[in-house]
Amino acid sequence: MNRIKATVAYDGTLFSGYQSQPGKRTVQSDIDKALRKLHKDDSVYSVASGRTDAGVHAWGQVIHFDTPLSLEDDRWVMALNVLLPKDIRVIDAAVVPEEFHARYSATGKTYQYRWTRTAIQSPFERNYAVHLGKWNPDAARMREGAARLLGTHDFTSFCSSKTATSSKVRTIRKLEIEEQGDQLLMTVEGDGFLYNMVRTIAGVLYAVGIGWDEPHHVTEILEARDRKQAGKTAPAHGLYLMNVTYGE
Amino acid sequence: MNRIKATVAYDGTLFSGYQSQPGKRTVQSDIDKALRKLHKDDSVYSVASGRTDAGVHAWGQVIHFDTPLSLEDDRWVMALNVLLPKDIRVIDAAVVPEEFHARYSATGKTYQYRWTRTAIQSPFERNYAVHLGKWNPDAARMREGAARLLGTHDFTSFCSSKTATSSKVRTIRKLEIEEQGDQLLMTVEGDGFLYNMVRTIAGVLYAVGIGWDEPHHVTEILEARDRKQAGKTAPAHGLYLMNVTYGE
Repeated sequence: MNRIKATVAYDGTLFSGYQSQPGKRTVQSDIDKALRKLHKDDSVYSVASGRTDAGVHAWGQVIHFDTPLSLEDDRWVMALNVLLPKDIRVIDAAVVPEEFHARYSATGKTYQYRWTRTAIQSPFERNYAVHLGKWNPDAARMREGAARLLGTHDFTSFCSSKTATSSKVRTIRKLEIEEQGDQLLMTVEGDGFLYNMVRTIAGVLYAVGIGWDEPHHVTEILEARDRKQAGKTAPAHGLYLMNVTYGE
Repeated sequence: MNRIKATVAYDGTLFSGYQSQPGKRTVQSDIDKALRKLHKDDSVYSVASGRTDAGVHAWGQVIHFDTPLSLEDDRWVMALNVLLPKDIRVIDAAVVPEEFHARYSATGKTYQYRWTRTAIQSPFERNYAVHLGKWNPDAARMREGAARLLGTHDFTSFCSSKTATSSKVRTIRKLEIEEQGDQLLMTVEGDGFLYNMVRTIAGVLYAVGIGWDEPHHVTEILEARDRKQAGKTAPAHGLYLMNVTYGE
């Protein structure tokens, strides 16, 4: 058997999230359908670095699967893309050691959150960025708030109360707020993220940016270890899984 | 009564074209639905500069409608956008003299056609640009072909054989081929365009670009006045109505 690692991009708009669910169109079920068609074998399946919610996009989701087939790397890309719908694209593929695991070997992830500042939102952006409308967050205030989240913390206040994981301690290595033309971008890199964590951070920093909250309150939210302190989760369609890192 | 001129952008992906058709979702029927809701009057309707096909997008479609209401220009924009689906946005609105007619007063139109050259098409571009794949048209050859279409000609070879218009003579004022990063763009400006004319031009210049046809053959196609000479119409989802001009 060969273990294949593949990088996958998808437009999350028309999927009920990443993970397979009976009767729903999901990214995982479409990938597994393509794998099964290619192998003419119903037992082939993929494992991803983690799930993403309905509406969330990916430029660099990573999956692995085991296969008896031996194909050149670029042949895997082509063969899967022929079988996949156009809102999922395999970007690259490579044989990896059998110890590699898309989820357990991951050492870090980067997400980006996108807002647009245009007076009227482009109809082409409606599913791909959150429109700020009359609210215009101040990037400098957001950066002040962001600085307070850097490092290793218990992120209980920043994850869905449904989160089952026992440890809520995570490390954020980078949390940047950038303005690029009409876009406001938040890029966050960490060793891993709890359920809804990036969207909760985006919601908190947005509230700080528009003056509903003060930058120093971010530390208080963190210390409270209470999801209710963090306010609204930012909408799914502004979020992108940018990449997953493995090893050093 | 006030006559209002409005500029409208739309993502054509989920519409069966611009023009109202029974039982179909069209841009016109959604605009007219919004107008009727706003006026609480079933007789209000819009007139556009022209129709666009299913899948074709617009940044600058122009419409007019007559209304007994007197609103500030930006109030029209806001009121209509609240009632419209997010894949249609009114960009601006203004009261115009009653002689103004979105279709008959138009003196020019600009369309853009977009191709992407990336090895694998981004899932986010699938409805917004035509993927070139292994075919890589040569922009210089396309420009040679394009130069032969500039000016006033009978464009019978470049319109759908279903075109009912009596005169097929049109003037192309500008026809540019540009490369912008991974994109190949064709921008065409003229006094007006026949049914499928821009997509037929895109198809012919693409064939010239990839070497299936010679630049000088564009003149022969034009002179033949026979649609069969022009080959394939380029796909709808690469096409954008950029703007409509009025007056000088």
